[in-house]
Amino acid sequence: MTYGPINFREKLDLFTDLWSPRVIAELNDYQFKLARIHDDFVWHAHDDTDEAFIVLKGKMEIEFRDGCVELAEGEMFVVPKGVEHRPRATHECHILLVEPRGIANTGDAGGEKTAENDVWI
Amino acid sequence: MTYGPINFREKLDLFTDLWSPRVIAELNDYQFKLARIHDDFVWHAHDDTDEAFIVLKGKMEIEFRDGCVELAEGEMFVVPKGVEHRPRATHECHILLVEPRGIANTGDAGGEKTAENDVWI
Repeated sequence: MTYGPINFREKLDLFTDLWSPRVIAELNDYQFKLARIHDDFVWHAHDDTDEAFIVLKGKMEIEFRDGCVELAEGEMFVVPKGVEHRPRATHECHILLVEPRGIANTGDAGGEKTAENDVWI
Repeated sequence: MTYGPINFREKLDLFTDLWSPRVIAELNDYQFKLARIHDDFVWHAHDDTDEAFIVLKGKMEIEFRDGCVELAEGEMFVVPKGVEHRPRATHECHILLVEPRGIANTGDAGGEKTAENDVWI
């Protein structure tokens, strides 16, 4: 049988919209999602799950109510469940997210930046 | 509060042994592990879980009984649960693994290449 790798760059080249995670793989009931981000996202929390951010290209920040973490290419951070956070990027940044299937990007906040969920690419 | 990123390169520089995954982060009951790999690993399967491989530097192959997948930097693959596989790398390769906490690197095979589990770095 022929097995193929999942190439982050090739997958990212298939879409251009911001803050709209695309699912590229599943691991049990968890999903790996690619996203292009730029400017500020909304403050939100995920009450039932942690959320992993891995930076593939560029730089981003995750703002917390009591601090901030800066992430560059080759760095990751896990936002604990229930912790309010606001991702942002001064320049377009490409990230890999890992979280359980079915998690909305805006968590408990909702609003216009809520992306369609479970969109594969 | 001060939050710090997890830098893959800095963490990898802290150890040199092969096929000995180090835990760098947890996401709910899942772990992110860094590993240096070189040459052939053992054939094994994980009966109860999928396993994600992400290549950070170099190239690796995952051999299956009926095929093979080649992974380069910036590529990933999820080995489905129960599927026999053998990771290998012609030259030293650095990878990020994602799998549930408590998974042995040699799965059902055991043997001398079984690394100590849950070792954080």
